[in-house]
Amino acid sequence: MKIKVLDTTLRDGEQTPGVSLTGNEKLRIASKLDEIGVNFIEAGSAVTSAGEREAIKNISAQGFNARILSFSRPIFKDIDYCLYCDVDDVNLVVPTSDLHINEKLKTTREKLLDLSNNAIDYCKDHGLGVELSAEDASRSDLDFLEKVFSVGIETGADRICFCDTVGVLSPSISYDIFSRLSKLNAPISVHCHNDFGLAVANTIAALKGGAKEFHSTINGIGERAGNASFEELVSSIKILFADEFETDIKMDELYSASKLAARLTGVYLQPNKAVVGENAFAHESGIHSDGVIKNAETYEPMTPELVGHKRKFIVGKHVGTKGLNSKLLELGITVNDEQLKEIFKDVKSLADMGKTVSDVDLQAIADNVLNIDYEKRIKLVDLNIVSGNSVMPTASVKLDIDGKEIVEADVGIGPVDAAINAVNKGISEFEGIEFVEYHVDAITGGTDAIIDVIVKLKKGDKVLSARSTRPDIINASVEAYISGINRLIE
Amino acid sequence: MKIKVLDTTLRDGEQTPGVSLTGNEKLRIASKLDEIGVNFIEAGSAVTSAGEREAIKNISAQGFNARILSFSRPIFKDIDYCLYCDVDDVNLVVPTSDLHINEKLKTTREKLLDLSNNAIDYCKDHGLGVELSAEDASRSDLDFLEKVFSVGIETGADRICFCDTVGVLSPSISYDIFSRLSKLNAPISVHCHNDFGLAVANTIAALKGGAKEFHSTINGIGERAGNASFEELVSSIKILFADEFETDIKMDELYSASKLAARLTGVYLQPNKAVVGENAFAHESGIHSDGVIKNAETYEPMTPELVGHKRKFIVGKHVGTKGLNSKLLELGITVNDEQLKEIFKDVKSLADMGKTVSDVDLQAIADNVLNIDYEKRIKLVDLNIVSGNSVMPTASVKLDIDGKEIVEADVGIGPVDAAINAVNKGISEFEGIEFVEYHVDAITGGTDAIIDVIVKLKKGDKVLSARSTRPDIINASVEAYISGINRLIE
Repeated sequence: MKIKVLDTTLRDGEQTPGVSLTGNEKLRIASKLDEIGVNFIEAGSAVTSAGEREAIKNISAQGFNARILSFSRPIFKDIDYCLYCDVDDVNLVVPTSDLHINEKLKTTREKLLDLSNNAIDYCKDHGLGVELSAEDASRSDLDFLEKVFSVGIETGADRICFCDTVGVLSPSISYDIFSRLSKLNAPISVHCHNDFGLAVANTIAALKGGAKEFHSTINGIGERAGNASFEELVSSIKILFADEFETDIKMDELYSASKLAARLTGVYLQPNKAVVGENAFAHESGIHSDGVIKNAETYEPMTPELVGHKRKFIVGKHVGTKGLNSKLLELGITVNDEQLKEIFKDVKSLADMGKTVSDVDLQAIADNVLNIDYEKRIKLVDLNIVSGNSVMPTASVKLDIDGKEIVEADVGIGPVDAAINAVNKGISEFEGIEFVEYHVDAITGGTDAIIDVIVKLKKGDKVLSARSTRPDIINASVEAYISGINRLIE
Repeated sequence: MKIKVLDTTLRDGEQTPGVSLTGNEKLRIASKLDEIGVNFIEAGSAVTSAGEREAIKNISAQGFNARILSFSRPIFKDIDYCLYCDVDDVNLVVPTSDLHINEKLKTTREKLLDLSNNAIDYCKDHGLGVELSAEDASRSDLDFLEKVFSVGIETGADRICFCDTVGVLSPSISYDIFSRLSKLNAPISVHCHNDFGLAVANTIAALKGGAKEFHSTINGIGERAGNASFEELVSSIKILFADEFETDIKMDELYSASKLAARLTGVYLQPNKAVVGENAFAHESGIHSDGVIKNAETYEPMTPELVGHKRKFIVGKHVGTKGLNSKLLELGITVNDEQLKEIFKDVKSLADMGKTVSDVDLQAIADNVLNIDYEKRIKLVDLNIVSGNSVMPTASVKLDIDGKEIVEADVGIGPVDAAINAVNKGISEFEGIEFVEYHVDAITGGTDAIIDVIVKLKKGDKVLSARSTRPDIINASVEAYISGINRLIE
């Protein structure tokens, strides 16, 4: 059974508190959604603002394969705004629980039915497709809900949708309800929220009950605990329920779609987010790494490549010798058994102190054990910074490069930028070094917090990270930068 | 039916790549777990390291109500380490799938059975309780699995546990399997991973099938996509399945337990994490805020107080006039309808540009609309910074306080710290101002990235946040700090 996907990242996802997308950002996400095979894109809610309408209108004008929708209340003003945006369909959202009808809308079931039907009529008269969505359906009287749907279908609704607005459905109840409602005369869709962590399971249960379409958002963003996660649903269907369902989604774009949405919405994922989190295919413990090295299936439910992700081995407290050796080889370090044991011991004792073991730490431990007194071609001799509110941030550096002293100075838009610019002038003889990424983390606390700086540098094919942790952001940045360059030009 | 909870935050949770807890941190989390009513605490894996053993031993010595466990492979060395740690029980983990037996252990089903039974014998001979956990049970031959369990129970296992090691279970399969295995002669427990977002649903289905205990971790941390989330399971049981199950957990400590674990493990949650995420009870959209103001049940599946959390109204692109007015009142700003409309318009146009609207932004918009030319008592006239690698970071400031010029200088452990110290000297006449939090975010990019500084300040009962976004971290920090103080001393 082919299941259709309605993505609501740009509507329910954007309702995530604190998220605002510009028209351009919406277009970038919509293009990605269309490219990976989403069938319906809910591009926003036309009534929200003038900027929102221009964004939706622009998405409608792209000629995507996906049908474009706008959210609408059963109010002519909302529908007129949808018409202005040239959408294909409206997601016509009508509350059906007595709680919503009486307490929020302060109206009655009868008046609500009229409202709903008049809105459907108005949409169809103006050439709009209608997905009739019952808000708070999971807390609605099922007989009344069925009436709203069946009358709505008679009036002209093309599809109907059951919304578990506050996430209180459970899989068995979901299955029973959809087994009943899927007998109605229009395809039924399911829209789940994740307040109890059950959104994916409730959606799958709805499909088993006969739903033909599901609503989801990239990364599961949305109101409160968010919506059912797009990547978890698509992967579940592909790996666990392939004998029953399939979708049109290009699986190997899931990770890049997730990254794009995280970057544009500013809602970053916890590392253990299923399918697309940074740890979804990362292995640290000795038992797991050992198993994965022998046969990845032992501790992976699918390959990372399937979703466009990557496998990672992490070195930490639970590392085993086999995982550690793989990691060392990855860093280009070959060791014998004796040396491996020694490095293993040092890693464990660093981790026992509550420290994470970065690539840089591991490199240093290995250098020490292997007695590599690896020569740093560039040494920082002196660094001076002058800055302020009406002073041009200025830095001077004295570097020792291969024994030769070089002094340079430069300005920048801030003191860190000035310092790095001055260093860059000093090391101009080393060509082709690219600054890929600069990342600062302050352990939340006072202004005397420790600052953790990570720089990622590139030269040709070689990419590496260097890190420095100090209370002073300027020194930390310069130190990390020079240490990274030293490794690049070894 | 009373369900027992085994928490494995300190074992499977700590196996989250990159997480290392010190003995002290483990003890703090274990104390919290015991306090909120967890029945079993898996404190770690004794074989991991010397530090790990001291940590587990220390937790065992506390006389907690909870039984303390250590992870162990079916190997005498591991069990001896568990004995050293004085734990009550071992979580004896035996792989049962052919994939794990053949590929990882390179052994046979028969030898595995011997291994398992010898280990159980050895544990019981030494007075240890045994929870016999079948690793990768969900990909095991069910007849063989049942044999491992039934022979294990005969040999002396006190409890058995079915592990969905790579998260491939589905609720209906989980229910069927537990309906069969719960007929065996020992209580059965369920251990789920969240690779497809189904861990909570699979755990609930296992309970419906007859499981008497579940394994979970705070915040759902753990290998790859993590384990079943403790707070999601406990809340589901309380709100959705109260007629079937109950636990001993003190619900109103869920949020604080989550915060503690996040802080100590360094694994921060995405805002839309169910139950304990920062957005779990946050409302932005006009329709939702309006509903919640009328009756919170309309858009909340339970009260935030139930889990020790708080409701929040956020002002952004989707805000409605009612939510906006509530927020303004919260900030102590009273407006008439005309002014509200004006502020509403300004908020929407700021949001259309992709900006989030902070309290500070909202305050500024309101000040402007209300024509409050609110007087800043402290103005920064001049700021000078000298710093470097061998220079004591030094700052001088010239402040205009109520029209009087004050010049001060101070040093610090870094340039930001020096600047803030100098400002503090200058404003010493204003007493009782506390620095609560300092937070820096750099938009990942080059060293010319925009730096976003947020400071939280306190004076008596009044707490407020101030923010500044500039390319220069020192200026941004000082600006945010002074703007916050100005509001505190109004």
